Amino acid sequence: MKNEKLENLRHSAAHLLAAAVMKLWPDTKHAIGPVIDDGFYYDFELAKPLSEADLPKIEETMKEIVKSWKGFERHEVSADEARTEYKGNPYKRELIDEFAGEGQKLTIYQSGEFRDLCRGGHCPHPNNDLKHFKLMSLAGAYWRGNEKNTMLTRIYGTAFPTKKDLDEYLTMREEAKKRDHRKLGQELELFTFSDLVGKGLPLWLPKGTIIRNEIEKLAIEMEDKFEYLRVSTPHVAKEELYLTSGHLPYYKNSMYPPMVMDDGTYYLKSMNCPHHHIIYLDKPRSYRDLPLRLAEYGTVYRNELSGTLAGLLRVRMLSMNDAHIYCTADQVEQEVTRVIELTAYYYQLFGLKDYWFRLSLWSPEHKEKYIDEPENWKHAQDVMRKILKKLNLPFEEAEDEAAFYGPKLDVQFKSVIGREESLSTIQLDFLAKSRFKLSYIDAHGKENGQVFVIHRAPLSVHERFMAFVIEHYAGAFPAWLAPIQVRIAAVGKDHQAYCHELAVLLKTMHIRADVDDDNETVGNKIRKASNEKIPYTLVVGDKELQSAKLAVRIRGEQKVVEIDKGKFVENLKKKIKSRSSDLLF
Amino acid sequence: MKNEKLENLRHSAAHLLAAAVMKLWPDTKHAIGPVIDDGFYYDFELAKPLSEADLPKIEETMKEIVKSWKGFERHEVSADEARTEYKGNPYKRELIDEFAGEGQKLTIYQSGEFRDLCRGGHCPHPNNDLKHFKLMSLAGAYWRGNEKNTMLTRIYGTAFPTKKDLDEYLTMREEAKKRDHRKLGQELELFTFSDLVGKGLPLWLPKGTIIRNEIEKLAIEMEDKFEYLRVSTPHVAKEELYLTSGHLPYYKNSMYPPMVMDDGTYYLKSMNCPHHHIIYLDKPRSYRDLPLRLAEYGTVYRNELSGTLAGLLRVRMLSMNDAHIYCTADQVEQEVTRVIELTAYYYQLFGLKDYWFRLSLWSPEHKEKYIDEPENWKHAQDVMRKILKKLNLPFEEAEDEAAFYGPKLDVQFKSVIGREESLSTIQLDFLAKSRFKLSYIDAHGKENGQVFVIHRAPLSVHERFMAFVIEHYAGAFPAWLAPIQVRIAAVGKDHQAYCHELAVLLKTMHIRADVDDDNETVGNKIRKASNEKIPYTLVVGDKELQSAKLAVRIRGEQKVVEIDKGKFVENLKKKIKSRSSDLLF
Repeated sequence: MKNEKLENLRHSAAHLLAAAVMKLWPDTKHAIGPVIDDGFYYDFELAKPLSEADLPKIEETMKEIVKSWKGFERHEVSADEARTEYKGNPYKRELIDEFAGEGQKLTIYQSGEFRDLCRGGHCPHPNNDLKHFKLMSLAGAYWRGNEKNTMLTRIYGTAFPTKKDLDEYLTMREEAKKRDHRKLGQELELFTFSDLVGKGLPLWLPKGTIIRNEIEKLAIEMEDKFEYLRVSTPHVAKEELYLTSGHLPYYKNSMYPPMVMDDGTYYLKSMNCPHHHIIYLDKPRSYRDLPLRLAEYGTVYRNELSGTLAGLLRVRMLSMNDAHIYCTADQVEQEVTRVIELTAYYYQLFGLKDYWFRLSLWSPEHKEKYIDEPENWKHAQDVMRKILKKLNLPFEEAEDEAAFYGPKLDVQFKSVIGREESLSTIQLDFLAKSRFKLSYIDAHGKENGQVFVIHRAPLSVHERFMAFVIEHYAGAFPAWLAPIQVRIAAVGKDHQAYCHELAVLLKTMHIRADVDDDNETVGNKIRKASNEKIPYTLVVGDKELQSAKLAVRIRGEQKVVEIDKGKFVENLKKKIKSRSSDLLF
Repeated sequence: MKNEKLENLRHSAAHLLAAAVMKLWPDTKHAIGPVIDDGFYYDFELAKPLSEADLPKIEETMKEIVKSWKGFERHEVSADEARTEYKGNPYKRELIDEFAGEGQKLTIYQSGEFRDLCRGGHCPHPNNDLKHFKLMSLAGAYWRGNEKNTMLTRIYGTAFPTKKDLDEYLTMREEAKKRDHRKLGQELELFTFSDLVGKGLPLWLPKGTIIRNEIEKLAIEMEDKFEYLRVSTPHVAKEELYLTSGHLPYYKNSMYPPMVMDDGTYYLKSMNCPHHHIIYLDKPRSYRDLPLRLAEYGTVYRNELSGTLAGLLRVRMLSMNDAHIYCTADQVEQEVTRVIELTAYYYQLFGLKDYWFRLSLWSPEHKEKYIDEPENWKHAQDVMRKILKKLNLPFEEAEDEAAFYGPKLDVQFKSVIGREESLSTIQLDFLAKSRFKLSYIDAHGKENGQVFVIHRAPLSVHERFMAFVIEHYAGAFPAWLAPIQVRIAAVGKDHQAYCHELAVLLKTMHIRADVDDDNETVGNKIRKASNEKIPYTLVVGDKELQSAKLAVRIRGEQKVVEIDKGKFVENLKKKIKSRSSDLLF
């Protein structure tokens, strides 16, 4: 729910917050209090610093005050009247000067005793509507975001129409915190960052590298099945390549700075496509070569501003599950269908059921934004629609949202914490053929320049996909992804040798196993394995030494179960091979 | 054989070449004729252009002339005498001015009627010794390599003491041409270069990528067996990292130019080690964590001058079979031994029997060139020697050839065309620990800073190793490396369906197979498969349709043999899995 009514509610809550703070600390100068994505905030200049511990008191005051707020009264005032009212408040004065300068009439809204300069947009009956709010956090914020200005105190809060909505939001927030890939990435030793290496450049630790490699193995296996050919292209190229592709100058701001070498100017790769086009051009292609599907876990580099970098979600080096399909106009339908099939397989494997497609189209009204090939636009868009209908897939259309070079199809889904996300994209490109003079010899021996290129990345980039996978499983990965699949816990010293024997046996079977022979209780060992979210823990004591049975503790289960050693190994191998997400035997 | 005697022989041959050219075209001005690695050359200013077709005639004249050359007479002359003798030859005049300027006495050597300005160094009896020579090629060359000077004609030749030596050299040269990785790389569609992408930056085509990936798979499998942990680190890093490691400023000339971003200066990775050290430092290490072996197919970048780039042997982006082993002083012996074992396994797999080790030591006399830790030098070198002796490996020692940070052990071998090469290196490093403050907590809970780092790259870098592999097998790869393992050739239209059925069956078994259903004769199809050096060609006609037998043509064999289908698949799978280099069943 994100609509005007909700925004009005939250905007009213911002008024209420200001009223409470002014009541508690009358020396306060209140600045501005806008609505944001998840709620609202208000900035204050306070005589004394606040701490998180003050928030409940403010909330209490808010609840007290709102009882008398029956509505918001609108008062039109002149700029001078407003200046008089806010004569001690430089922030409001600045705003008044700005609004008055624009020749605008000013409005002040009043509820109870509290008045605030405001353009309006409130809930009608605050004493009734405004009950389910919560103050979330405190932060410092420069007035108007400019570090030359005074540092104000910002109080964040949120509000919902019902208690249920608020509770759900708070639960989701807690869940999101628990699942935060940065937190789990550190706890589970998956990746790290270093100031010496630089921002936005994760270093993958051994356990994270295992997951990365498993995902890459999955992609390679599936792309092999779907008849892609793998290639490998350099990470730098001359500016001439990116001038040909058009990335220069249009995309220059996102690219790393140029490097001048003795034979020209080089750039770090911003996209894989131009490199794949060069491979397409390496020899004359015949209609018998098409569709040609070139795949690469290609690394691309983005010069993001350091301030915008966050965990794995925004990085400066990306390993992309990339491929480009070169095909004729007639083959577009079959090829896009196959890509959707591949994508659907992945979504099913990762247990994402609730997804839909977003088809971004051109706009005949804004032709300047798009490559001028109306027939190809029509053909491509019709084909895309036809496929989605034929496969009976839910989709929405977004006019005037296509790429410059063709329509695109994004897969949207609701994440485990309810956030709408997009990982996969399928894009049609009818610009590349003219920029790179892509062509093929048709069945009649004639050269044909109508080579369509499909860009696709169903598994996104390693960095984003790993963030997704960590959050999705909250770090409790299915066996095939788990860095350690089996932990073998020795009860005592006498059991260690057998534990190591078991570990060797499992490793021979390509099962990732390790031994915990620390000088600790079994209880502690099980707790450690549980914290590390290891799928299977084998407890080895006297009994296990004397039989062919294993005592297996499956992650998430309380009971330790007895399983025949051979059966355990066989079943686990099967689970890993089928990439099952179910740990139970 | 590369010694003074051989150089004297070749220098004499250069005189003889000049004598022949001057006799055939008396207007010629002869410039200089030095000895080079494989033979000699002489530069001439000729009145009319020569072509390769003239070389036999010159050779004949050389053979004629040499009969009368009983020795080389030495004549001392003054500069003025020399100037008079060469008054029409600006090249010799320039040399005379230079030598005379240095106050040197000049010598002219004479054989038969031919006199040449020369410092000496000839074979004693040319009419006897100088019989086995050959002129190889022609090229244009600027006088003294300066493009502002006259373009001269350079004639290359070689000479050997015996006919056998010469023949062997010519055979090897032919073989080297046939095996040239650039030629085969293009013919077999393994890799390509593009002017748009830039020099020294190979693009790996699908077939080359298969071989690359097979080699990488081998490395990963073996490193897994040898208990390495895989990591993955970014390809760029801040200058602070390389200042800490010391690559900056010492190595700056080999690095790509810096890239200034909004939060500092970044460089493309020149080495993987600093990145791995950061991973070592990610958490406190205990003696129980050591040895810690971090492996990565790490990509490094070298700013080589564009003029020096050649095929895969000198490139600007290298994918290195890299790893760093962190261990205590006591563990060095065991760890170096294990690396040698791993290396020996690879050499055996690729059929390299004739290899030896080169141990590069420090020099106590040139202490300024080496890290000042005499005890560690002694310990490390003693350990290396001890291992080599214990394993009974042939090795030579090279004093004053170590790296700054420790001794190194290179593996040398004779390539198939008789060239001495080195692919693998093992290096000990006792500098990293102080630069990065590497340490561990010992068994008594005390911090210990004596962390030894072993750098090792047994499979070198993909680019060099691929060049080696291509040359080594002359493109006729063993089944496990062959991009296409089985070619299925349909005799006629009626057999195509069964061919495709067979291909699907083989692919399911993870055997790389394709179908040749071109409208051609079977003879042609077999010839194509042979040119592509495909290990197995299945010929499918009526007979095969009606039985469970396959008609198999094994690469290098003339006869087509009948093999049971099931047996063929099973045996081939075994051969691939064991990485056998033998194709025969």
